[in-house]
Amino acid sequence: MRQNLRVNGARLLARLDRLAEEGARPDGGVCRLALGDADKAGRDLVVQWMRELGLTVTIDAIGNVVGLRRGQEDGAPVMMGSHIDTVATGGHYDGALGVLGGLEVVETLNDAGVVTKRPLAVAFFTNEEGARFQPDMFGSLVFTGAMPLEAALATVSIDGRKASEELDRIGYRGPAAVGRPNVHAYVELHVEQGPTLEAEDFTIGAVEGVQGISWTEFTLTGQSNHAGTTPMRMRHDAGYVGAAIAVYARRLALEIGGHQVATVGALTLTPNLVNVVAERAVMTVDLRNTDNERLKQAERRLAAFAAETAAAEGVKLETRTLARFDPVAFAPHLVARVEAIAKELELPVKRLPSGAGHDAQMLAAICPACMIFTPSAGGVSHNIAEYTRPEDLAAGADVLLRLVAELAE
Amino acid sequence: MRQNLRVNGARLLARLDRLAEEGARPDGGVCRLALGDADKAGRDLVVQWMRELGLTVTIDAIGNVVGLRRGQEDGAPVMMGSHIDTVATGGHYDGALGVLGGLEVVETLNDAGVVTKRPLAVAFFTNEEGARFQPDMFGSLVFTGAMPLEAALATVSIDGRKASEELDRIGYRGPAAVGRPNVHAYVELHVEQGPTLEAEDFTIGAVEGVQGISWTEFTLTGQSNHAGTTPMRMRHDAGYVGAAIAVYARRLALEIGGHQVATVGALTLTPNLVNVVAERAVMTVDLRNTDNERLKQAERRLAAFAAETAAAEGVKLETRTLARFDPVAFAPHLVARVEAIAKELELPVKRLPSGAGHDAQMLAAICPACMIFTPSAGGVSHNIAEYTRPEDLAAGADVLLRLVAELAE
Repeated sequence: MRQNLRVNGARLLARLDRLAEEGARPDGGVCRLALGDADKAGRDLVVQWMRELGLTVTIDAIGNVVGLRRGQEDGAPVMMGSHIDTVATGGHYDGALGVLGGLEVVETLNDAGVVTKRPLAVAFFTNEEGARFQPDMFGSLVFTGAMPLEAALATVSIDGRKASEELDRIGYRGPAAVGRPNVHAYVELHVEQGPTLEAEDFTIGAVEGVQGISWTEFTLTGQSNHAGTTPMRMRHDAGYVGAAIAVYARRLALEIGGHQVATVGALTLTPNLVNVVAERAVMTVDLRNTDNERLKQAERRLAAFAAETAAAEGVKLETRTLARFDPVAFAPHLVARVEAIAKELELPVKRLPSGAGHDAQMLAAICPACMIFTPSAGGVSHNIAEYTRPEDLAAGADVLLRLVAELAE
Repeated sequence: MRQNLRVNGARLLARLDRLAEEGARPDGGVCRLALGDADKAGRDLVVQWMRELGLTVTIDAIGNVVGLRRGQEDGAPVMMGSHIDTVATGGHYDGALGVLGGLEVVETLNDAGVVTKRPLAVAFFTNEEGARFQPDMFGSLVFTGAMPLEAALATVSIDGRKASEELDRIGYRGPAAVGRPNVHAYVELHVEQGPTLEAEDFTIGAVEGVQGISWTEFTLTGQSNHAGTTPMRMRHDAGYVGAAIAVYARRLALEIGGHQVATVGALTLTPNLVNVVAERAVMTVDLRNTDNERLKQAERRLAAFAAETAAAEGVKLETRTLARFDPVAFAPHLVARVEAIAKELELPVKRLPSGAGHDAQMLAAICPACMIFTPSAGGVSHNIAEYTRPEDLAAGADVLLRLVAELAE
């Protein structure tokens, strides 16, 4: 491949803007919930682009769409991809960048007359966001065999529709075999959705993996008491124990360090009155780490602190696991190539983990996979204000182009 | 006075039970909201009992009722009293004990043929609870001159009625001059409404004063961020700052010690989601102490900690004072006499502060005043399950009898 080959940033941006018209919100954002009318319109548009670029389009039974570009040889393609569904208050880039970045790579190669040795593919997977159907990412879960097709088809949307019926309705319950084609390697370009690259002046993120997630709900039951007449030593204050756990979660994240994060985003007191000691507190703790051993350590220490603090206060503690996913490590040689290619292109690059889930973590179970991040202004995503500078979008697609071209030789 | 004079506990209990029929709830509790129909029925009953005991009943313009018992000499009476209104889910004893305990003292003296040198009085003050009209205790506030009569008359109930109209409607806007008679000393028998006496096996509380109250609302505004993608050092977590303030409030109470209490009873996060760093926290801190200097110290230290912690996290702090009352100290010689009389009667007695507000704190501004506490089972009050053992009720009335008889000589 010619070393100076670059994508056309303006063309990529034009496709991103055009796709954002499907499901456009009056406020400038995008609402393209999985398998809804706007998603159908977006799918139709992307499929049309795929065909215009000469790709052979296949659609499987859960609506995953793959556009295949022939190589000099047959065999498993190098796949680029992501998703085109959005949350209800989404922006222009989350998901769309990985898919349309893939199309831009194809068009750049087409224009240059380059035919790679291996085939290439551009894919978009159904319901990555999970905003309309649970679980999220069921398209890539089914693609990789991690979830039975029937289970995904039977899921019911927040508006009461079965996934199977919605696929039929919008015409995306396709005939292609699930899990085909076999994938030689998978590369997903995506906006960071976090503040790190922008804050530290990096253009490219070489994503080392996806953080493991541990969500725990604590229900603390103490005793409702008069805030004036109850001496401190006689209290069974569920609110105090909840606050102590929240403060400890912060301390734990700082002590474990590295990529460990800890968040108490939800805490509800009952009766929640100024002059009544709280009888009940229900709270969540969100722990994430790329290192599963450290994540387990965080879980153990948190559970021990919660149990001790509740016991010392005479408060009953109930614990429920809301979610638990092991971390996913991307293929080290691919992560190293993302980093090296960015440097070759003189793009400031940083290794970092993904704090959010992505289709790439599912694909990592069946082939070498990696991700390329571009900066998110202010770290904002899942928000109509989501923004990435055009030059950064193009830079990400350039890295994608080089990496995919390499992997296809 | 004969040393062996004792109240009739069964008669006191019978009056408490009879009054509890007015506003009785199906669940065994009492709902006798100030100036409502049940309050009128309760007032009529107590006024009838006053007259049957030979008291001269006067009613002032805010509905405070005083029953006067002549002494051997004229002059300012020694007053017993409390209130007969309740909260919506009240019990049999809160307020009623101080009034009916006073009637029991009168009847015991009547039966024994004792006429004290000074006159005696039994009073009940309007709207102590504040459950129907704000502010609470407006009857004793007006009686002592701390609130203008017109302001109290103009207050509007939670159900939209003016106090003046309700007084007219139930026939308790009386002709007596407000603030009359002058009071020589005031003694209020009341249930503790806290757990201390029961938990430590005391029968009598010699109440040293009423805690000062400081209620502060903190509004913390940070930034809503993704719990996975936002590194700890880049967070502006309003929920963390709120939790840290709550934990500090506990530490502050323990460090200051004595009668200092601190409660974070209300804390509300926005958006209150498991995977979103809280943008906003609104919380209250309730600080109380009998010592105003220590209470001020607690306020200062809390404010400093909140400001430092919010600044370190990059979170905006807004502070609003919701309520602030200085502590009230009861007359030391009366507190000492309550303690001494209880010991003479071989009743286990403990000095303690009142964590709740009482009419006695208003009366303390115009005369030597004190309170006698009896135990509350489980510290429960403002609750249909409120309970004090009959022998403890009688014990409290015995102390009241001795103290009032002494003060009237």
